[in-house]
Amino acid sequence: MISTLLSRRGGAADGDRVPRLLYGADYNPEQWPRAVWEEDVRLMREAGVNLVSVGIFSWARLQPAEDVWDFGWLDEVMDLLHAGGVGVDLATATASPPPWLTTAHPEILPVTAAGETVWPGARQHWRPTSSVFRHHALRLVREMATRYAAHPALVAWHVNNELGCHNVYDYSDDAARAFRQWLRARYTTLDALNHAWATAFWSQRYSDWEQILPPRLAASHPNPTQQLDFKRFSSDALKDHLRAEREVLREITPDVPVTTNFMVMGGTRGMNYADWAGEVDFVSNDHYVQPGPQDRDELSFSANLTSALAGGRPWCLMEHSTSAVNWQPVNVAKRPGDLARDSLLHVAHGADAVCFFQWRQSAAGAEKYHSAMVPHAGPDSELFGAVRELGATLRTLAPLAGSEREPAPVGILYDWESWWACEQDSHPTSLLDYRQEALDWYTALLALGVRADLVTPHGDPHRHQVLIAPVLHLVPESLAKSLARYAEQGGHLVTTYFSGIVDENDHVWLGGYPGALRELLGIRIEEFGPLLAGDTVALDDATTGSLWTDRITVTAPETEVLSHYRTGACAGRPAVTRRPTGKGSAAYVSTRLGARDLAALLPRLLEPAGVHSELPASVRGAVETIVRRGAGGRFVFLVNRTDVTVAVPGVSGDVLLGARDADGAVSLGPREVAVLRTPAG
Amino acid sequence: MISTLLSRRGGAADGDRVPRLLYGADYNPEQWPRAVWEEDVRLMREAGVNLVSVGIFSWARLQPAEDVWDFGWLDEVMDLLHAGGVGVDLATATASPPPWLTTAHPEILPVTAAGETVWPGARQHWRPTSSVFRHHALRLVREMATRYAAHPALVAWHVNNELGCHNVYDYSDDAARAFRQWLRARYTTLDALNHAWATAFWSQRYSDWEQILPPRLAASHPNPTQQLDFKRFSSDALKDHLRAEREVLREITPDVPVTTNFMVMGGTRGMNYADWAGEVDFVSNDHYVQPGPQDRDELSFSANLTSALAGGRPWCLMEHSTSAVNWQPVNVAKRPGDLARDSLLHVAHGADAVCFFQWRQSAAGAEKYHSAMVPHAGPDSELFGAVRELGATLRTLAPLAGSEREPAPVGILYDWESWWACEQDSHPTSLLDYRQEALDWYTALLALGVRADLVTPHGDPHRHQVLIAPVLHLVPESLAKSLARYAEQGGHLVTTYFSGIVDENDHVWLGGYPGALRELLGIRIEEFGPLLAGDTVALDDATTGSLWTDRITVTAPETEVLSHYRTGACAGRPAVTRRPTGKGSAAYVSTRLGARDLAALLPRLLEPAGVHSELPASVRGAVETIVRRGAGGRFVFLVNRTDVTVAVPGVSGDVLLGARDADGAVSLGPREVAVLRTPAG
Amino acid sequence: MISTLLSRRGGAADGDRVPRLLYGADYNPEQWPRAVWEEDVRLMREAGVNLVSVGIFSWARLQPAEDVWDFGWLDEVMDLLHAGGVGVDLATATASPPPWLTTAHPEILPVTAAGETVWPGARQHWRPTSSVFRHHALRLVREMATRYAAHPALVAWHVNNELGCHNVYDYSDDAARAFRQWLRARYTTLDALNHAWATAFWSQRYSDWEQILPPRLAASHPNPTQQLDFKRFSSDALKDHLRAEREVLREITPDVPVTTNFMVMGGTRGMNYADWAGEVDFVSNDHYVQPGPQDRDELSFSANLTSALAGGRPWCLMEHSTSAVNWQPVNVAKRPGDLARDSLLHVAHGADAVCFFQWRQSAAGAEKYHSAMVPHAGPDSELFGAVRELGATLRTLAPLAGSEREPAPVGILYDWESWWACEQDSHPTSLLDYRQEALDWYTALLALGVRADLVTPHGDPHRHQVLIAPVLHLVPESLAKSLARYAEQGGHLVTTYFSGIVDENDHVWLGGYPGALRELLGIRIEEFGPLLAGDTVALDDATTGSLWTDRITVTAPETEVLSHYRTGACAGRPAVTRRPTGKGSAAYVSTRLGARDLAALLPRLLEPAGVHSELPASVRGAVETIVRRGAGGRFVFLVNRTDVTVAVPGVSGDVLLGARDADGAVSLGPREVAVLRTPAG
Repeated sequence: MISTLLSRRGGAADGDRVPRLLYGADYNPEQWPRAVWEEDVRLMREAGVNLVSVGIFSWARLQPAEDVWDFGWLDEVMDLLHAGGVGVDLATATASPPPWLTTAHPEILPVTAAGETVWPGARQHWRPTSSVFRHHALRLVREMATRYAAHPALVAWHVNNELGCHNVYDYSDDAARAFRQWLRARYTTLDALNHAWATAFWSQRYSDWEQILPPRLAASHPNPTQQLDFKRFSSDALKDHLRAEREVLREITPDVPVTTNFMVMGGTRGMNYADWAGEVDFVSNDHYVQPGPQDRDELSFSANLTSALAGGRPWCLMEHSTSAVNWQPVNVAKRPGDLARDSLLHVAHGADAVCFFQWRQSAAGAEKYHSAMVPHAGPDSELFGAVRELGATLRTLAPLAGSEREPAPVGILYDWESWWACEQDSHPTSLLDYRQEALDWYTALLALGVRADLVTPHGDPHRHQVLIAPVLHLVPESLAKSLARYAEQGGHLVTTYFSGIVDENDHVWLGGYPGALRELLGIRIEEFGPLLAGDTVALDDATTGSLWTDRITVTAPETEVLSHYRTGACAGRPAVTRRPTGKGSAAYVSTRLGARDLAALLPRLLEPAGVHSELPASVRGAVETIVRRGAGGRFVFLVNRTDVTVAVPGVSGDVLLGARDADGAVSLGPREVAVLRTPAG
Repeated sequence: MISTLLSRRGGAADGDRVPRLLYGADYNPEQWPRAVWEEDVRLMREAGVNLVSVGIFSWARLQPAEDVWDFGWLDEVMDLLHAGGVGVDLATATASPPPWLTTAHPEILPVTAAGETVWPGARQHWRPTSSVFRHHALRLVREMATRYAAHPALVAWHVNNELGCHNVYDYSDDAARAFRQWLRARYTTLDALNHAWATAFWSQRYSDWEQILPPRLAASHPNPTQQLDFKRFSSDALKDHLRAEREVLREITPDVPVTTNFMVMGGTRGMNYADWAGEVDFVSNDHYVQPGPQDRDELSFSANLTSALAGGRPWCLMEHSTSAVNWQPVNVAKRPGDLARDSLLHVAHGADAVCFFQWRQSAAGAEKYHSAMVPHAGPDSELFGAVRELGATLRTLAPLAGSEREPAPVGILYDWESWWACEQDSHPTSLLDYRQEALDWYTALLALGVRADLVTPHGDPHRHQVLIAPVLHLVPESLAKSLARYAEQGGHLVTTYFSGIVDENDHVWLGGYPGALRELLGIRIEEFGPLLAGDTVALDDATTGSLWTDRITVTAPETEVLSHYRTGACAGRPAVTRRPTGKGSAAYVSTRLGARDLAALLPRLLEPAGVHSELPASVRGAVETIVRRGAGGRFVFLVNRTDVTVAVPGVSGDVLLGARDADGAVSLGPREVAVLRTPAG
Repeated sequence: MISTLLSRRGGAADGDRVPRLLYGADYNPEQWPRAVWEEDVRLMREAGVNLVSVGIFSWARLQPAEDVWDFGWLDEVMDLLHAGGVGVDLATATASPPPWLTTAHPEILPVTAAGETVWPGARQHWRPTSSVFRHHALRLVREMATRYAAHPALVAWHVNNELGCHNVYDYSDDAARAFRQWLRARYTTLDALNHAWATAFWSQRYSDWEQILPPRLAASHPNPTQQLDFKRFSSDALKDHLRAEREVLREITPDVPVTTNFMVMGGTRGMNYADWAGEVDFVSNDHYVQPGPQDRDELSFSANLTSALAGGRPWCLMEHSTSAVNWQPVNVAKRPGDLARDSLLHVAHGADAVCFFQWRQSAAGAEKYHSAMVPHAGPDSELFGAVRELGATLRTLAPLAGSEREPAPVGILYDWESWWACEQDSHPTSLLDYRQEALDWYTALLALGVRADLVTPHGDPHRHQVLIAPVLHLVPESLAKSLARYAEQGGHLVTTYFSGIVDENDHVWLGGYPGALRELLGIRIEEFGPLLAGDTVALDDATTGSLWTDRITVTAPETEVLSHYRTGACAGRPAVTRRPTGKGSAAYVSTRLGARDLAALLPRLLEPAGVHSELPASVRGAVETIVRRGAGGRFVFLVNRTDVTVAVPGVSGDVLLGARDADGAVSLGPREVAVLRTPAG
């Protein structure tokens, strides 16, 4: 769908019906004089840009007062873009309410847990649950949809922008009211809520729905289920806003696909995108690299997870950066080759559109030091040269447009509910980092050259021979059963410390940990052994654990102990176990090993499943490989993870991108990407 | 009294009149289905539990609405416990106001210094000075007392819970009003207050009582005497609540002793327990180990200080943990033996009751990862085994029940007023830590094997040959005189840097430091020399100082200089001095030496008093010794402070707990405790 | 003017018309009983004190209620001081509003960005924009001025105190109103404001002035020009208060000079003193040493900058400390000699008055541990001895009173607007420290023994052969032109990374960095290369850069590359460049070199200007030299920067302070200062 978006344009050329990769950016012409617009469209053509998002922050310009509308400039922009052959992903423009609205209605401003008002001055200063905001936002959406329904440039709708980036948690009275409604819908009766929230503890029993509040600033740890439900509610409240805008758009322009840009990256965790993914016509994502030793593994991880959200189908990279951003403590520039490699890594994982924030770097405002396609230095710059080059590369890769991801032998289960639950306060350790643990497994698999797919609870684990479920903390009965079924039917499950501990209400599964998975794993843990910061324990397989240990007792005779603790309070006890389950198995890793030691352990966990690297031994770890498959063939991406040249021997297929050396090996310069095509199998 | 509490039970057996050690926990049956209650009582008997605290967080359950009461379930619990032979320390249940109350009366919620409301969701969300809260709390107390006055299980009252754990500082308008009343009572006239607060500084002179406020968020350092008085007032406000509940209880059940659980541990400093101790019929304390190099020294220190609060008489350890807690950054599990050793160390220091939070580990709620007597894993667990074993040990130790502490040769003066005063802002250094300095002296004495008692200003220093007063910062004239008298009458006083500096109004004693003790010590300091973080100075006795130095001039001819500074700005000047005072002496240590170097210095300070270790040289430092004495004899506790086996030769007495080896030495395994009994002298 | 202030006293002796150095302190007699006052005046005479500031925090005492005045005690103090020959710099007493005023008018209390009220309890709890506060403050000023207009002790007015120390940023509704007025005055039209603030970004377009707010707590980075304008406004709001008080004083006592004490020191940056300097009759400054490796360089830097504010004319050191202060995390005492050296370094840079906070150390209150001229120990102390000695030294130096600073060969441009702008959020790096960069250049010049003057944008760069402009970030067109003119007319300009980037609206100069200086420097930068914390790059001249790098392209054929990057992402590219501009030049340093490596680079930058050290090679770096020049001659100060004795050979002139050794060299003990006089040239 994404790859044929341009065919939606009125008067689209026949060629637009051929799938192609899209290329573009957020385009904010209102920041520039009229004269610049023509140059913009000329440069877009030069760079191969064919898709831009327009109007994201235009509310104050489009509706300068409650009953005043000014669409003329946008009409002109849309016409210019259309004339230039550029399709428009048109924003609903509701991301940032204008000053007149917040002045007239300060009651739409969010409130922090400590009761502080979040004032205008930046963006997203609106309560997701404000009926006043909703009213004004939907009115704008309706105006936009009505006016541009028939515009030939329109190819998709872009709802709001980065929903929840700053306003996911609002503790206002509006939020309190909406929270109560959400709780009524979830629990029906107060008794059910009192049970779920375990309000017998600390004298918290509610006798009226009106007594319930968000977890505002409290004297100590607020009720954990209240906290967890507030996270669920807050994600749902924003999802509800997304749906409300979408419904207006579907009513007026039923044929135009609707999307919004997710933020699958880094620590962004407030929005349960696995739950949101079904609400959009195609998935879009924003991704920014945060410097660190695993920065490009994290990029791959995020792109992979976005692919999971999209159900393996193509998705749109709605924002990333050509170089530095402006919001990190230090915003480092990308090195030569990073721009292309970062973009193509997203394509490898299913992106059929590669877009940036933003087209032209702002001369002023809070993001003026955020890089763009046209930098402050202007088109006469190395950066714009690289942008043009990437445009050409994406044209070369057109044959893979529309292809889907080919399932990998290994799946990594990623679950927002466990993420939220396992990092709550008053836990055995405050140092646990759900995403880092998952990323470490991913890095370890990259180091081994073994392909892995992120999988959400909505995905089908049976597509993978091995399913890794790091810190799968919150396990309702149904999930416990489906995991047991997976293992019994031949799947090889691997899980870790602090998994299977609580149910959907954050109530501990009693009788010994990990209650929900105890029988499946054939072990029992009487007590957790979290480690102080800096403490480590040695295992007898020469690996080293940190963060956590468990006092494990093996309870099933068939359970094998893969390694023991050699030091620490658990010395002599099992550290890694595996219970055979017919054709499958269920393994448990009771400590944090980190990426390097997980790579040492993994071959023993993958072996029973017969999973090995598909890469030649000489390049394992140096090269990431990803496979897309579609009508046009099977496309193997080879991404050089290193800063030196790597030759990959024995790779079959036509070289769609890259080059073979004299020996026929695919030669990858530092950080380079190659794509090989074989006919669809 | 504690050891015969069970005899208060209606229908108590004759045996209950024999003193015994009590054993138990907080018991929260409302968190569990009815079916579990019977198992609870059965397991309690199995473990030797004979005392539980019930109802602490039951307000919402007992009074589900303003005029609705539900005591049936508690009646049943009380009956079951009584039938099982378990006495009940019944809570007044006022610790955490129920949702209906805070919804109807949000004006009882505390307010932070920055003006933020502290909302419900956790616990202790009530203003100590709210008349509305007081009204509702006392009404509940009256109902409880009336209903259970005659219940045979009732053996004591447990007022509220951990008063001030989260709500000691409240800056609300209620607090402001009460603060003014408290100040009127303290100062009578505004002139007296203006003098005490030195309001001539920074234009703060008050012309009306109504102008006075708590030290809320200010532009710079608030008035220090205002800060100090607000600490005094805040402690008193909670004490006043304790007294108010107690008065209701005494009216209705004059024969049932009343207690509340103090929190003598770690940095808890808001409540002046030395001042509170007289308000309860027996002292109770909660103690939790915080991991660190001095963690068990700190346990001993806290237990010792609790004994001081109890006037040397037995007290109740109302809460500690069987293993990990849930509120530290990382909550480490206890090692084998820790459970018993930690408990018995409290007993050594005078605890006649050993109780835990809590009986059965919660399956849900904010403390579900806090260990308990019955863990998540159930009674079939190593932990419950250790719990049963401790129960048996406590039965073995019954003969010492009711015995008091035998005064130690060394006293360490611990004073809340100096603690509060010396750590205020705008001081020479913000790095000073009153409790750490006192703890270091304690650790040093443990390292030397010399017994020491913590002493409060209410205690009698003359019971100790040596009195150490670390950072005795705030010294009213009366205290200065009593210390001088102590030294003149043969006592050996040791004090340190930043002692004797201010009077009760935090006004500096002029003319040269330490003004209040200058003549007694025979020195004069013109200027403080605090050291930057990380800076150290060498002394000429091979010790090393940090944090502080003083530019000392010796003013009395008889003053001896025990050591000089060898480096730093004070190089060549005295560092440690001692002035003989007839049969006694007054010594001054002008820098922070830390536990190790204090142990090097101490023999020179103890020598004139003739104080030496009572332990054989071979085990000094490895073993802590504590002595209780009562009708049943003299009981010497030997606690192995190390992780290896230690043999203590030459100890006389019957081995009540532990064993002698072939040579007759008392053999202590790692972390083990032995108790020897000799006839009362 | 300052040096003849005493001649203003009624009945001043003839000698008072002879210029002399003034010596004194803040004097707060209201903190002491009447009996102490006489001793105070006696000790002042003993110490040589001839000037005190009185009444700074006396509001509550002078006006105990709205319509009650109590001047009697102050009359007496003024009389006593006059009788003792001490002149009075009389405070307007408005620094700290009394309790009765804030109780009656809580609406004068400041509000934080998060909406928190700043309560009384400390000082400066008033909104600069409150009309209510202004009314009461000016009423007090009028009373003071009227009462003491004719008092013979009065020699100057001291407006308020340390304006803005704690209350420069107020986000109240009063501030919002005043901010809007200020913006109307600056921009006239909303269109101009919308353009300047680039409100097209993030939908911030204002359609009514009433919509505009201070940059209160927001969801993300507030609008940067709004932030910058709020800084300008906040500085102006306090300046406006200064002017309002001054106007009352000028009306009533037109002949008495008016000053207020600036705080040119450390990170104090909220008040644009370059902009304020013209508002006072003579410049006064408060300076406190903050311990660190560059602490006395910072003292010299601040004194030097104060001299720049005073236009090279004498100024008043209104406050510094005899030893420790009370508000740093650790307040270290001064070493022997520091008191005199610190004072004389200020004199070297133009101070004709040396005053302290405060005369007598407070026995109570928030600053009781702040050192004073008379310490807690009393006059019988080493400290008071040093105070007396300094008084004698200042009498010796009387001949230089009234002399001005002799321009140094090097100027360092210091600009509050660039300071504010370059450290805003959402920038390439958050680690940039404007003042530290400027201080490092200053330290490097001290290490080379080259004299340098701080210069404000109001100063004349043409007085200096070399003008260094570190991080001159904000460059309006006029400044760009004047710098080009400077270089073209023979000046040697040196600037650094992140200079010339934005205009007065914080809009980026487009086309390649550094836009405003690109042509002058003959280089073009496409992209910034900030470095992560801890990262460094090697240059090919053996220096090392941190914090920042630039990807420089040389664009003018005449531009020379002085050094290249050897490592890092810019390896091989230019790091330091210089473009000859006729007789002058324009150099660019693209990384942070730090003081030591700047000292290595500087000779190459100074060489074309023919600037060399005036000191003998043997003492360069060890000695700081400063020159004052006046009717009485040319005065060369030699300050020993080291802790060992230094002999300075070949210095001509009469030794006014200090001594020559047998060889005729000026001998400087550790931290000593010498002054040589030659006849005025």
